[in-house]
Amino acid sequence: MTKSYSANKALALDFLGCPAAPAASVDRIEKIHEGLMSGNEAFTGWVGLPQRGGDKETERILTAAARIRDGCDVFAVIGIGGSYLGARAAVEMTEDCVGANCAGTPEIMFAGQNISGSYHAKTVDRLAGRNFKLCVISKSGTTTEPNIAFAILKELLFDRYGKDEAVKRIFAITDPKGGALRAEADAEGYESFVIPPDVGGRYSVLSPVGLLPMAVAGIDIKEVLAGAQRAAEDDMRGLAAVLAATRKALLDGGKTVEVFEYYEPAMFMFSEWLKQLYGESEGKNGTGLFPAALSFSTDLHSMGQFLQEGNPIFFETVLDVLRPPRDLTAPASADPLFAGKSMNEVNRAATEGVIAAHRAAGIPIVRVSIPDMSPYSFGMLVYFFELTCAYTGRLMGVDPFNQPGVEQYKKEMKRLLTIN
Amino acid sequence: MTKSYSANKALALDFLGCPAAPAASVDRIEKIHEGLMSGNEAFTGWVGLPQRGGDKETERILTAAARIRDGCDVFAVIGIGGSYLGARAAVEMTEDCVGANCAGTPEIMFAGQNISGSYHAKTVDRLAGRNFKLCVISKSGTTTEPNIAFAILKELLFDRYGKDEAVKRIFAITDPKGGALRAEADAEGYESFVIPPDVGGRYSVLSPVGLLPMAVAGIDIKEVLAGAQRAAEDDMRGLAAVLAATRKALLDGGKTVEVFEYYEPAMFMFSEWLKQLYGESEGKNGTGLFPAALSFSTDLHSMGQFLQEGNPIFFETVLDVLRPPRDLTAPASADPLFAGKSMNEVNRAATEGVIAAHRAAGIPIVRVSIPDMSPYSFGMLVYFFELTCAYTGRLMGVDPFNQPGVEQYKKEMKRLLTIN
Repeated sequence: MTKSYSANKALALDFLGCPAAPAASVDRIEKIHEGLMSGNEAFTGWVGLPQRGGDKETERILTAAARIRDGCDVFAVIGIGGSYLGARAAVEMTEDCVGANCAGTPEIMFAGQNISGSYHAKTVDRLAGRNFKLCVISKSGTTTEPNIAFAILKELLFDRYGKDEAVKRIFAITDPKGGALRAEADAEGYESFVIPPDVGGRYSVLSPVGLLPMAVAGIDIKEVLAGAQRAAEDDMRGLAAVLAATRKALLDGGKTVEVFEYYEPAMFMFSEWLKQLYGESEGKNGTGLFPAALSFSTDLHSMGQFLQEGNPIFFETVLDVLRPPRDLTAPASADPLFAGKSMNEVNRAATEGVIAAHRAAGIPIVRVSIPDMSPYSFGMLVYFFELTCAYTGRLMGVDPFNQPGVEQYKKEMKRLLTIN
Repeated sequence: MTKSYSANKALALDFLGCPAAPAASVDRIEKIHEGLMSGNEAFTGWVGLPQRGGDKETERILTAAARIRDGCDVFAVIGIGGSYLGARAAVEMTEDCVGANCAGTPEIMFAGQNISGSYHAKTVDRLAGRNFKLCVISKSGTTTEPNIAFAILKELLFDRYGKDEAVKRIFAITDPKGGALRAEADAEGYESFVIPPDVGGRYSVLSPVGLLPMAVAGIDIKEVLAGAQRAAEDDMRGLAAVLAATRKALLDGGKTVEVFEYYEPAMFMFSEWLKQLYGESEGKNGTGLFPAALSFSTDLHSMGQFLQEGNPIFFETVLDVLRPPRDLTAPASADPLFAGKSMNEVNRAATEGVIAAHRAAGIPIVRVSIPDMSPYSFGMLVYFFELTCAYTGRLMGVDPFNQPGVEQYKKEMKRLLTIN
């Protein structure tokens, strides 16, 4: 069956060859939603973040961002997982819409996302001879990757600028009270912002965690929040409910992998953000949809064969941007099929061609259409998927807001580092 | 069960919690191997590529590369799928081993891998004010993405340098006889190299398709071929046989996703190459292992929860680099657990910690250890996985050298472009 849904000035959904969303699930989501909004459930503070567009903290972020942009080539943002994916997704997705490359905008360099020595050495290389400031984002301050990166870059900053100036170039986003980073920020006098204690990392992009780096990148964060607020309205949360119920039905029907696909390379980090959101929320108690992402048309030339004729364990979720920000015309010397055509027109034909071919192969497809790659659309997409994820997690019978398994390997790693 | 295998000056395999490789499969692989080497099977020309290290064409590649490197800021390499993944994997993996960033080495810029207008506009932006030369890699010359990118960049080249000089700056790698690009190269007088007709795209990295860009990047291509030749020796192809039989046994036992994991970010493109190799070779007749890739430690902070406790549909293949090229010491101000330690030592503990934690969760793990990230190791790894892939494909009952499904969406796309 094919069903289409859309909301005004918003995103639209098409379900192609998907099972019908069971009415019982949709009903249950009404209750789930009430619970989310009740304020009585742990780590659901994210539901209210879109409404904070006009508050004092947002104004303070904007003021700090203006000061950071002044006399700064590189703003090095240190954080991992939920402490960087959302901001980076926003910076990359909206790049061609907000003129992030305009004069006066520092490069936003994300750091502290790996342990590898080669990786850290390259991070240091990239700062050589460049005027930089630091942002460190960590609830505890002791997570391996950001902890080490912050120590390395802080040393570089102190050597370069001396202590007094260096301290003014450090911005901390951390717990309001506890943890090593809060203690250091207060003791040293770094300007600091708060990670709301009732918001988990993967749901934190609409808090200062995401908003400060976005604002430094020149993104209108009030537009981001307005887009998110739009996704909180009844018509759009109705779409989220249908999507959540459909995803659960697909899992129940034997699909175990969800493949996110996009036709604009600048959506890459958004799909990475989405992988954490869904994967970490659903992947527990032996259940969940394994999230994978493919960049089209690029990966049609590597994974296209598998999708067309391989093991049908998956369904596809297409992130379809209706009005991409830039375009180019294929020159006259290109193949006659393309010559003189707009690239975005060719890309549209590719999108429709892939959907038709995969549908003919029996693959269920969900199409999520968004108007453009603006900050507004970014915020809308974020909150829409957060809602969808919370609903699906509850339908799957897991707690979408905890992550009990992420400490297992760290225990063993710490043991090995202690005995060596 | 845990079984370890290693070959001298080569890679090593550990199978942790994997089913035993069935003896019948290993025996069958002996026959499969004979067939591959017989010269009687379609598209098996890749088996002989490692032996071409000393031949005339390799010398011609080296001569051309030296000329290209002279007076060139950017070498724009146009190709998609098998026409770029291998070369890009080599350039990124070996970057810190070969001094690709040394003076005199042009940036290798890969282009023509997407349709998006924003993507092409950025490609043009990146060439502004830079002295560039072009390489176009395409069997037919009419594949959408490279066809359009070549038309755009050729126009730029002609405008910038005039026709006579522009023609000397274009290098074509294409079919020896047929196709639009061969005709154009011969008519216009571009220097050209041959894609061997008996080698499919995803098996072509050890042909001029991969070797010319690598040589321009300063990679010793004779070392690459020597490493590949090492993987062709009996002890190492024995390892490939055990791995192939084990992968088939994992699929038969209900695992449907293979997750490639690496702890050096520079292995990212290698994992993309591997996804095409396996995905396009195996994904047909409704079978195959869905290939996914994760960059650790980065993605432990997004997908770690799912791997530890989520839907156990997958097994893991760890690409473990024993001696990473660079290192750094964590400063004294880092957490006491890390302070003063080598990052690569911490990364080693992370690797072992993850393996222990995932094993405790019952996930089967294959560890492929390679000595380093040198051109030699790159070549060895390429040929090892090519053999493994050919063996597994045959065991799965599919033809690992065709790709009947990749044209489906193109037909629909062309129809849409013709009626518009």
